[in-house]
Amino acid sequence: MNHKIRIGIAGYGNLGKGAELAIQYNTDMELVAVFSRRHFKHTASGVPVVSVSDMAEYKDKIDVMLLCGGSATDLAEQGPQFAALFNTVDSFDTHAKIPEYFGAMDNVAKKHGTVATISVGWDPGLFSLNRLLANSVLPQGVDYTFWGKGVSQGHSDALRRIAGVKDAKQYTIPKDELIASIRAGQAPIVSANQAHWRDCYIVADEGADLEFIEQTVKNMPDYFAGYETKVTFISAEDLAAKHGDMPHGGFVLRSGTSSPSNKHIFEFSLKLDSNPEFTSSVLLAYARAAYRMSAWNFTGAYTVLDIPFAWLSPKSAAELRQQFL
Amino acid sequence: MNHKIRIGIAGYGNLGKGAELAIQYNTDMELVAVFSRRHFKHTASGVPVVSVSDMAEYKDKIDVMLLCGGSATDLAEQGPQFAALFNTVDSFDTHAKIPEYFGAMDNVAKKHGTVATISVGWDPGLFSLNRLLANSVLPQGVDYTFWGKGVSQGHSDALRRIAGVKDAKQYTIPKDELIASIRAGQAPIVSANQAHWRDCYIVADEGADLEFIEQTVKNMPDYFAGYETKVTFISAEDLAAKHGDMPHGGFVLRSGTSSPSNKHIFEFSLKLDSNPEFTSSVLLAYARAAYRMSAWNFTGAYTVLDIPFAWLSPKSAAELRQQFL
Repeated sequence: MNHKIRIGIAGYGNLGKGAELAIQYNTDMELVAVFSRRHFKHTASGVPVVSVSDMAEYKDKIDVMLLCGGSATDLAEQGPQFAALFNTVDSFDTHAKIPEYFGAMDNVAKKHGTVATISVGWDPGLFSLNRLLANSVLPQGVDYTFWGKGVSQGHSDALRRIAGVKDAKQYTIPKDELIASIRAGQAPIVSANQAHWRDCYIVADEGADLEFIEQTVKNMPDYFAGYETKVTFISAEDLAAKHGDMPHGGFVLRSGTSSPSNKHIFEFSLKLDSNPEFTSSVLLAYARAAYRMSAWNFTGAYTVLDIPFAWLSPKSAAELRQQFL
Repeated sequence: MNHKIRIGIAGYGNLGKGAELAIQYNTDMELVAVFSRRHFKHTASGVPVVSVSDMAEYKDKIDVMLLCGGSATDLAEQGPQFAALFNTVDSFDTHAKIPEYFGAMDNVAKKHGTVATISVGWDPGLFSLNRLLANSVLPQGVDYTFWGKGVSQGHSDALRRIAGVKDAKQYTIPKDELIASIRAGQAPIVSANQAHWRDCYIVADEGADLEFIEQTVKNMPDYFAGYETKVTFISAEDLAAKHGDMPHGGFVLRSGTSSPSNKHIFEFSLKLDSNPEFTSSVLLAYARAAYRMSAWNFTGAYTVLDIPFAWLSPKSAAELRQQFL
């Protein structure tokens, strides 16, 4: 490549900050600017912060824009605006709205001659790839997706709303024994509440009724009722010290057959110290593909399912055949 | 698709027989004929057997030919002959010769307007894909590939050559504790003999010196010396009953970082009841891609690294986004 791939980051929350860190491990890329609606001068690595309203000035200075906006609502609105000016990569993850979002991004990107890569990350993203690969290779079988061990923001918030709870963190954890049984070739039919358990760390107010809190948690409909749930009360210091990170991960498994007598277990798993840093690492690999595709005059919207892995790497096709086959 | 994808199988050993079984799970495909140098009339599923020397007669009757020839030597010679007439998918696995084979197949396929998909299977194949994906997403890290639990033909043959051994089977098995340490985030540097152990099942001749056999096995240079090796003597009946299958599998792991403080574990694994049936299932998925690519006027040689997963499935791009993202 003639110059480093010039990356912009739109949105400076956890994901944007993760991308700023992860880009340092991608020596063929450079971060040009961060785009934000908030006002501040420089980011952690010292690149300029540009108001979103001035993004058009950067049209020729950025090869690929990573859309790291906070919510799916942000993306649905901002995605098409960015795609009219830039090649984009985003992690749109509202499953039910993906077809609609794909259509909107495809229209804009085709009209403006850009490449819009949507729903990139690990789920949707790497997990989607593995579900599709496993289903294509083993057309007959049973699929499983497990999430965790990871922090669920929604469940942590639900704990914090209970009277007497000062702060809390909830981990969703897949059941080891179930994964073991699938790995052993059984193909159980299970629901989400049978497949996962919930591990809660709660800082209670002084003098709070701990038994009341624990029972309220375990019986909370939609969130905890029906799940195996463990509640541990800890100090605010311990919560900060031991539960301040954003780990996540999960498993995709398929148990399939190729003949009446033979079964195969296909498994993909991730164990992530930092969900946002890993997700942004995936965005960066797909930014490399978007850059190439744009150079090759592709336009329109794409997902991970449409993009060969060879385009994710800085290496040439011949190097890849030599080193990775 | 207008008609079923018409598949030919060249070579009727374990892999060809596996493909014949696995194709029944791919309802958009039909097996037209098996091509062999040996003479027999019909295969297990009743399709005609055609002499390899008559393959030109099938040029317009077969969409994709699976090259299931016994050895890499076969493929190096036959591959280009088939690629001159048919779209092909093969599992060429002599790593050092892949660039040369790719070049030969690419030349022939471009000249004759066919698609030649090489080195498809699980290693090379699905494992290659995962090594590349993990390296693209996490440019800084350590890679691991483990093979097994699986039968090693070469090691089983070595056992059979020992005086007093009537029959034998050897499984290569990755060390669980090492995989556990990698999953736990350690990134040990290990050699193949530290990463795997060897499990031997031996049928001894009557009156043979079992202690001599066991010591000969454990000290055999290149094959067993330096490895943790377990020898179990069993009856011929037990060997046939309990060790007659062709299981295999393995693990690809990458332990990588996205910032100085955060580490991620990427893992892909397969546990296969039948190595040839699973390998041929992968060939069939890539046959679907080769069929599409040929219809879209692609020509030349390709590997799994060049082909998006969307092309492996019978479903449309919109269905895939809906069901797999």
